[in-house]
Amino acid sequence: MDLNIGLVFLSELVGTAMLLLLGCGVVANAVLAGTKGFGGGFLMINFGWGLAVFAGVVVSIYSGAHINPAVTLGLMARDLSTGVEYNWALLPVYLIAQLLGAFLGAVLCWLAYKQHFDAEEDPGAKLGTFSTGPGIRSTGWNLTTEIIGTFVLVFVVIAFGAQGADDTLGVPAGLASLGALPVALLVVGIGASLGGPTGYAINPARDLGPRIAHAVLPIRGKGSSDWSYSWIPVVGPIIGGVLAGLTAPLLVAVTVAA
Amino acid sequence: MDLNIGLVFLSELVGTAMLLLLGCGVVANAVLAGTKGFGGGFLMINFGWGLAVFAGVVVSIYSGAHINPAVTLGLMARDLSTGVEYNWALLPVYLIAQLLGAFLGAVLCWLAYKQHFDAEEDPGAKLGTFSTGPGIRSTGWNLTTEIIGTFVLVFVVIAFGAQGADDTLGVPAGLASLGALPVALLVVGIGASLGGPTGYAINPARDLGPRIAHAVLPIRGKGSSDWSYSWIPVVGPIIGGVLAGLTAPLLVAVTVAA
Amino acid sequence: MDLNIGLVFLSELVGTAMLLLLGCGVVANAVLAGTKGFGGGFLMINFGWGLAVFAGVVVSIYSGAHINPAVTLGLMARDLSTGVEYNWALLPVYLIAQLLGAFLGAVLCWLAYKQHFDAEEDPGAKLGTFSTGPGIRSTGWNLTTEIIGTFVLVFVVIAFGAQGADDTLGVPAGLASLGALPVALLVVGIGASLGGPTGYAINPARDLGPRIAHAVLPIRGKGSSDWSYSWIPVVGPIIGGVLAGLTAPLLVAVTVAA
Amino acid sequence: MDLNIGLVFLSELVGTAMLLLLGCGVVANAVLAGTKGFGGGFLMINFGWGLAVFAGVVVSIYSGAHINPAVTLGLMARDLSTGVEYNWALLPVYLIAQLLGAFLGAVLCWLAYKQHFDAEEDPGAKLGTFSTGPGIRSTGWNLTTEIIGTFVLVFVVIAFGAQGADDTLGVPAGLASLGALPVALLVVGIGASLGGPTGYAINPARDLGPRIAHAVLPIRGKGSSDWSYSWIPVVGPIIGGVLAGLTAPLLVAVTVAA
Repeated sequence: MDLNIGLVFLSELVGTAMLLLLGCGVVANAVLAGTKGFGGGFLMINFGWGLAVFAGVVVSIYSGAHINPAVTLGLMARDLSTGVEYNWALLPVYLIAQLLGAFLGAVLCWLAYKQHFDAEEDPGAKLGTFSTGPGIRSTGWNLTTEIIGTFVLVFVVIAFGAQGADDTLGVPAGLASLGALPVALLVVGIGASLGGPTGYAINPARDLGPRIAHAVLPIRGKGSSDWSYSWIPVVGPIIGGVLAGLTAPLLVAVTVAA
Repeated sequence: MDLNIGLVFLSELVGTAMLLLLGCGVVANAVLAGTKGFGGGFLMINFGWGLAVFAGVVVSIYSGAHINPAVTLGLMARDLSTGVEYNWALLPVYLIAQLLGAFLGAVLCWLAYKQHFDAEEDPGAKLGTFSTGPGIRSTGWNLTTEIIGTFVLVFVVIAFGAQGADDTLGVPAGLASLGALPVALLVVGIGASLGGPTGYAINPARDLGPRIAHAVLPIRGKGSSDWSYSWIPVVGPIIGGVLAGLTAPLLVAVTVAA
Repeated sequence: MDLNIGLVFLSELVGTAMLLLLGCGVVANAVLAGTKGFGGGFLMINFGWGLAVFAGVVVSIYSGAHINPAVTLGLMARDLSTGVEYNWALLPVYLIAQLLGAFLGAVLCWLAYKQHFDAEEDPGAKLGTFSTGPGIRSTGWNLTTEIIGTFVLVFVVIAFGAQGADDTLGVPAGLASLGALPVALLVVGIGASLGGPTGYAINPARDLGPRIAHAVLPIRGKGSSDWSYSWIPVVGPIIGGVLAGLTAPLLVAVTVAA
Repeated sequence: MDLNIGLVFLSELVGTAMLLLLGCGVVANAVLAGTKGFGGGFLMINFGWGLAVFAGVVVSIYSGAHINPAVTLGLMARDLSTGVEYNWALLPVYLIAQLLGAFLGAVLCWLAYKQHFDAEEDPGAKLGTFSTGPGIRSTGWNLTTEIIGTFVLVFVVIAFGAQGADDTLGVPAGLASLGALPVALLVVGIGASLGGPTGYAINPARDLGPRIAHAVLPIRGKGSSDWSYSWIPVVGPIIGGVLAGLTAPLLVAVTVAA
């Protein structure tokens, strides 16, 4: 189908902003001083992020709901490796909208929790609301975890499409292919299962957009934005997404051949 | 379709009563003395409210399941701003039924937990079972949080309808457009992610109806009904809902244009 | 449709046994000594019971999945009050199968957790695994809570059927009308919201069958089966179910009239 | 339908690897030192395993998503006992792919949590991430629990198929018959309800594959692989699965006869 570039941009922008508003929100609720959900635990955070994906996907169905550069690049890798025609003009549209949307979502989260950011004394808790950081710092292993986690996300989505569900909604491939609710639960699962070491960025825009917001917003008593770590949740998810895009077509072949 | 005014009233009344019975119920279970779920945590409260929405939507499908004045007014804003004919006669029917239903649901919750309201010593826990209150009191920021939270709810519901699902059930637009289960999970997510600062009223009837019940019921050892705060969870959600109704049609335009 | 009495019996027997095996199981897991889920909390118990309903409904679709005398009697009240022909021959088949199935499910749960029943020292925890008991004992209020909780369950199920979904599955009315997954989540919600005072029996067979099992099984160090309370989780749910069966047709009328 | 043996192998291999990567992952997250989800509780583990099943089923739809020898052998028992032609050539393909996939998934989990396995001091926590062990050791009762838990899984799946949903997806019978999401929630329920005594292997490959991985991987400071217990989570699930395969056709007969 022919996609309108401006509408793709709007769709991804709104979807990714929704994702980050709700995603950063649940972390703020669980860790910032004086909230109702303080100490709500990791499962609450997993459900919060999963349902943030749900909301994000519902409002960006027009563009297939990538809302994640790893999904966009994974689909690019799939198409290029399988000889499907790829629309290069849309690539920067998706990526820029995602990064900008993620930034805006984080700003909205900050506004929603303004009083609690002010009341919180630990700069680490503030940064943790915006961006991910590892439990144990180690370039190679942190990268490995992000690669594996993102691989699972993109592989499941593409493999599902490959087994016949792509275009079910009459929309471009993306998270919407799997359906808003199933993909939300998949993200709950990835968070619970693979979020332990690095906090599961599994999405370059999800991590970089809010980190930029953290750097530029006048957050009271904020500390470092930890730029030395910032490339890992960008590069790891890209590698994982591309690997998934290259390997999931094996299951496509399975289905087509059958 | 032509709607019967009496039946719309009954549908919204029953749906909102169901919402508040179960919604106030989960808070009572989590905070009142001697309950089985005492200390059950914020995620239990999130699921309880989400599934309260589920039950409320299922029994008010006839009227599209607004069960929330912010939804009713958001849809009004959508219709007026997009030139769709609006049925003014139904507006007060929806709003009055919602407020009355919310009041009745809260009364039923009080009956279900009567012994535990009596046993509880903290007047704040009793009021908290009925109505919301902020973690940190601040007119502007509390209002901001309620605006953002309600915007998310109404925007996702309307945007989904805009992308083709409206009238899926052959019913008027409302929470039922998104489906009872998806909207329930959306509310779980909004609660987990944006409920931290103000306890997510995101519905004027949900807060005002039970607050009136708290004021008039002979609750043993009750304290103030905190009327000074009461306008925020009414005005904030109305603003958020109307903003969503005005902006979500942009995504409608997206879909129609495409 | 014509139902085979023997098959209805088998369907309800298996469904209710499944319900109680899993339902009693999650309580055993949360409260008995030495289990993996010890102290898992009320939300885990809510999900366990809800998903027990899910499994029970899936295996008793043939009979519409009542697996609860309050559902059976609520549907009887609906049919009698609305002039629908009622099949009296099936009534005792449903009720006896449910009670027997509940007994068998509780026995299986005891076998699955045998070592932990033996290791547990508190007789109250053992009885609590089988049957419900109130947080604060009070005949009138405990009865009220059970009436309200069961009313919600049966009203939502019947109202949903009334709005067009009855016989969706080509099966008799019952929990299956709402669908296995929706009804499971409804029960998660009722438990979280209305389970605080009495532990939500909301099903006479669910409480009485396991109580009989508790009385007759050779459980090491067991205490009283608390027969003085036992009629409340039988009578309360029956009243609630019948009230729902009498009132939900008002929404039926709504839909038909519309 | 004619199934390609190589594609069945790939499908089951990928599905079971996905299952174990995410399943072992959630345990690692909950118990290993320094993770984000440390102490996340049993319900988080239940959801993690359930959603691991979800992801595993989605990527192995081609082969019907057995991803569990107890399912494969249960279906074999069903077919043999009901006179359906059974494809013996596929049996070893399913079983070998499942065991190998489970091994690979556990290796990937170890890589994702490498730093946390290194940081953890308790060898029991490390083994617990890979394989199950009982709360109270007792050959007969541990076996009983595994038989009952697996019976529930396979019985519900086969009974659902028997009531008309088999081949819904145009795929061979298996977990996919029930649907990825319903079967995931069923596993959440079985875990919450019947996982207390033995940690719910309910799948021989799920336990044996990772135990072999534990034995051969160079895990820092690992202890015994507890081979003396290892046969119970293999034999118990096989017995439970076969019993389910032999009895569930009674409900098939129900439906067909009706």
